[in-house]
Amino acid sequence: MHIALDAMGGDHGSEELIAGALQAVEETGLYVSLVGDESLLNSHLETLAPDSRTAKKITIVHSSEVVGMNEHPATAIRKKKDSSVMVAFDLVRRGVADAAVSAGNSGATMAAGIRKLGRLNGISRPGIASAFPTRKKPVVMMDIGANVDCKPVHLYQFAIMASAFSKITGVQNPKIGLLTIGEETGKGNSLVKETYPLLEKSSLNFIGNVEGRDVFQGDIDVIVCDGFVGNICLKVSEGLADAAMQMLRDEIIKSWIAKIGYLLTRKAFRSFKKRVDYAEYGGAPLLGIDGVGFICHGKSTSHAIKNAIIKAAQMAKGNINRDILASLAAGNNVEHLEM
Amino acid sequence: MHIALDAMGGDHGSEELIAGALQAVEETGLYVSLVGDESLLNSHLETLAPDSRTAKKITIVHSSEVVGMNEHPATAIRKKKDSSVMVAFDLVRRGVADAAVSAGNSGATMAAGIRKLGRLNGISRPGIASAFPTRKKPVVMMDIGANVDCKPVHLYQFAIMASAFSKITGVQNPKIGLLTIGEETGKGNSLVKETYPLLEKSSLNFIGNVEGRDVFQGDIDVIVCDGFVGNICLKVSEGLADAAMQMLRDEIIKSWIAKIGYLLTRKAFRSFKKRVDYAEYGGAPLLGIDGVGFICHGKSTSHAIKNAIIKAAQMAKGNINRDILASLAAGNNVEHLEM
Repeated sequence: MHIALDAMGGDHGSEELIAGALQAVEETGLYVSLVGDESLLNSHLETLAPDSRTAKKITIVHSSEVVGMNEHPATAIRKKKDSSVMVAFDLVRRGVADAAVSAGNSGATMAAGIRKLGRLNGISRPGIASAFPTRKKPVVMMDIGANVDCKPVHLYQFAIMASAFSKITGVQNPKIGLLTIGEETGKGNSLVKETYPLLEKSSLNFIGNVEGRDVFQGDIDVIVCDGFVGNICLKVSEGLADAAMQMLRDEIIKSWIAKIGYLLTRKAFRSFKKRVDYAEYGGAPLLGIDGVGFICHGKSTSHAIKNAIIKAAQMAKGNINRDILASLAAGNNVEHLEM
Repeated sequence: MHIALDAMGGDHGSEELIAGALQAVEETGLYVSLVGDESLLNSHLETLAPDSRTAKKITIVHSSEVVGMNEHPATAIRKKKDSSVMVAFDLVRRGVADAAVSAGNSGATMAAGIRKLGRLNGISRPGIASAFPTRKKPVVMMDIGANVDCKPVHLYQFAIMASAFSKITGVQNPKIGLLTIGEETGKGNSLVKETYPLLEKSSLNFIGNVEGRDVFQGDIDVIVCDGFVGNICLKVSEGLADAAMQMLRDEIIKSWIAKIGYLLTRKAFRSFKKRVDYAEYGGAPLLGIDGVGFICHGKSTSHAIKNAIIKAAQMAKGNINRDILASLAAGNNVEHLEM
């Protein structure tokens, strides 16, 4: 397996990304191409990887441009043909790499993936899924922001793609829930009501409607929603988690007894934070393109990058797209729907 | 001020509701009509209120039926004309009470309010708002579930109504944000994109798009969204808060040092829980009807009921509907829009 890493994206700079690549190489023995400014990457690599055995599995592929975090994705991709994210996906297109990973501008990563690799045959809207922690096991949500105005067939296809990704992470026959505002059939907005029968008739393991309250319980493997709702869920959750921790801290620092108590519970707090950390689970597969792409959070640490590289390799190895194509073929009944 | 309380709704039974009414009467001196089964309520009242001065401010109004928590709202309201929630709103219609409060089936409460009092002139869709805690001050979100498929004019009217409610809670010139998935103008789904110019042109204090991440920061007073998105936000938040506390507890009980630490921080945890408790903030004004209605969580404790009764009285006293009508009149520019 050979992964192309956009070594210029992300908030922590190339050093952090390269460190993640080195960890992935050491842990699994796969090959990584670092894409970006050659001299910059070379100097970091020399500092970070004195071990020549690891360094041998790392190649640097030069690219002269970088897409900024706040650039308009489509425009940036059109203008910056030699940007690190475009060159990374080009390595996949040319069969040099098996998957591309980027922690840069996520819209641009998606646009580059579609531009270079094209859509998977039969998929009308590629999208972004996200795995996040719950009390029991991670749940995969799709779409989380790529497609804001959706039709039922798009949600149906998100279910197919997210289910295939859930299998890659080790879940057998993933349980799929349709996110809505009441568990009974027939509850929800018109998009949800029209999507329900498509999922019900499909060969997927559809368990019915689920509510926002069920998301973090860990009894569902895949949650399907449009990208507007998915993105808001994700951001509300991040915001709530931060605010709750701040509010708890506000209360704790009011008394010295509580402060001592906090010191004693700190290890538990740290384990908890690790359990819910995006660095462990975060990272979002770009699904529905004719190849494999993986989008990381801009804030990703080297540890998150390592995990993303390994997951991208699993997706390529597990041939996720073959599974998606098979599910699409099994669902001929929805082919006539307006895309 | 005189409040009609549906004394049959809620998960904890009439005793809890009556206790809340008594607390409200003691604290503020307002009058409360308890609506429900006369003999049941009488026996509870005798046990709970030995103080005759308080008891004098409480009247029992008999009703022979109750709408169950899982009944279909519209059907239940049509069939059960003598249900406690219908009779409570009838007291408002007849001018006996200034507002109605119910912790029963919230869909039925909304349906009863519209049926008995009618829509406020110019409002196309009454809805439900909710105030919830953030790090700094409560934020009001509307709609939280009554209207799942919305048009721009509905969101515009939610902004008017929620802003009026925010003023009732003491906020001067409430800051209104439109919930979407990117802060820049032009980000979001088509509903949001079409709503933006309506809010921008209005005389409301519209501060622009806000993201899910901003909801709990406490810098915004009112968040506008459709009822599908609002309900999912609310339920995801409740679910996450529960799951996070469970996960933290899972970590803490792994070590006895952490357990001791937890004991020392318990007071802080309790203060935190109180700060985020729906009993303090929860309760949801029913806005857009020609009168005042307040919906409580089924799980409401007496404390929550007391707060709801006081808030309903404030809404009636502050003449929230006059403010809504004035804002509607100021926004003639959107009157031609399809309702």
